Amino acid sequence: MDRIEQQFEFIKEIDKEKLIGRQSYLTDCVRKENDAEHAWHMAVMTILLSEYANEEIDVLKTITMLLIHDIVEIDAGDTFAYDREGQATRLQREEKAADRIFGILPEDQCRRFRELWEEFEAGETKEARFARTMDNIQPMMLNANTDGRAWTEHHVRLDQIMERNVRTSAGSETLWNYVLEHFINPSVEKGRIQK
Amino acid sequence: MDRIEQQFEFIKEIDKEKLIGRQSYLTDCVRKENDAEHAWHMAVMTILLSEYANEEIDVLKTITMLLIHDIVEIDAGDTFAYDREGQATRLQREEKAADRIFGILPEDQCRRFRELWEEFEAGETKEARFARTMDNIQPMMLNANTDGRAWTEHHVRLDQIMERNVRTSAGSETLWNYVLEHFINPSVEKGRIQK
Repeated sequence: MDRIEQQFEFIKEIDKEKLIGRQSYLTDCVRKENDAEHAWHMAVMTILLSEYANEEIDVLKTITMLLIHDIVEIDAGDTFAYDREGQATRLQREEKAADRIFGILPEDQCRRFRELWEEFEAGETKEARFARTMDNIQPMMLNANTDGRAWTEHHVRLDQIMERNVRTSAGSETLWNYVLEHFINPSVEKGRIQK
Repeated sequence: MDRIEQQFEFIKEIDKEKLIGRQSYLTDCVRKENDAEHAWHMAVMTILLSEYANEEIDVLKTITMLLIHDIVEIDAGDTFAYDREGQATRLQREEKAADRIFGILPEDQCRRFRELWEEFEAGETKEARFARTMDNIQPMMLNANTDGRAWTEHHVRLDQIMERNVRTSAGSETLWNYVLEHFINPSVEKGRIQK
């Protein structure tokens, strides 16, 4: 295949990300969110909120990471943050998916996306740290916005949230404090998050 | 309101873009696409396809434009490309929506998003030209991928498509030629687009 045909083949393939469901509810609990919507939301959030990153970040790199990091879920499915069994096999399932899906691309772009996805997973660069902060904050914002529906349904406890977010402040202290004060604490007070 | 509260208020508001439906069908015609999914798809496309832009573009600026350009449809609704009456009142409806929704943001970010949206609408800079090329190509790719379903349902004619795409090559000659050869011409041959 030509380079451009490989690119369009990939572009066609990733259309399926729009069908990968997540646990967060949209405004007014109309329905649950999907991966493509989640990625779009975080990309816009990064443009607006990068000023709060602990260290200055490369915004395009961070956005690219966020736009593509869930593509592996086309094959591997979404693993809910608090699903312990699912999380144990997640990386293996996702590695296989990355081989197949990024493998559709021309070699240089395959390598670039693969590296960005691995960088996101490792969470060690400043861009990956900020991207992971976005990935943790966005669903908490939606949960708080829907009276904690997803938290309530899954009987999520505060200690699980704190464990999940142990590194959220590594991307942005300011944003973590905001989330704690505006989304988490009020939801604990209202009993939407179990103590 | 504090700056950060205005930003989160906007982030919460734009969640509604996920509920704005478009006419294009997703893979296997499972359902129609929404604006947030469309924006995500075009952002990834821009990362992969910017190498075909007629002139070198600022990728982050182009992506930002694409990520936010349909936010006005939260109030104004999606206007189908071939809906003549709707198109006549579109800009007026969208201007009003831009005032309200971008107005939620802190002043500097409100101005930045407003200017990017206006730049996209005018389609005169190289980034806006490429963004508009993406905005025209992405639904044609989906239509071709679903055996022309949206074209057939709306009895779309080739002359309407050519009129709509009179400036698509201004963003990228290469991509326009690809689309013509791989999406439009085969769909005309199969009778999915009316001659």
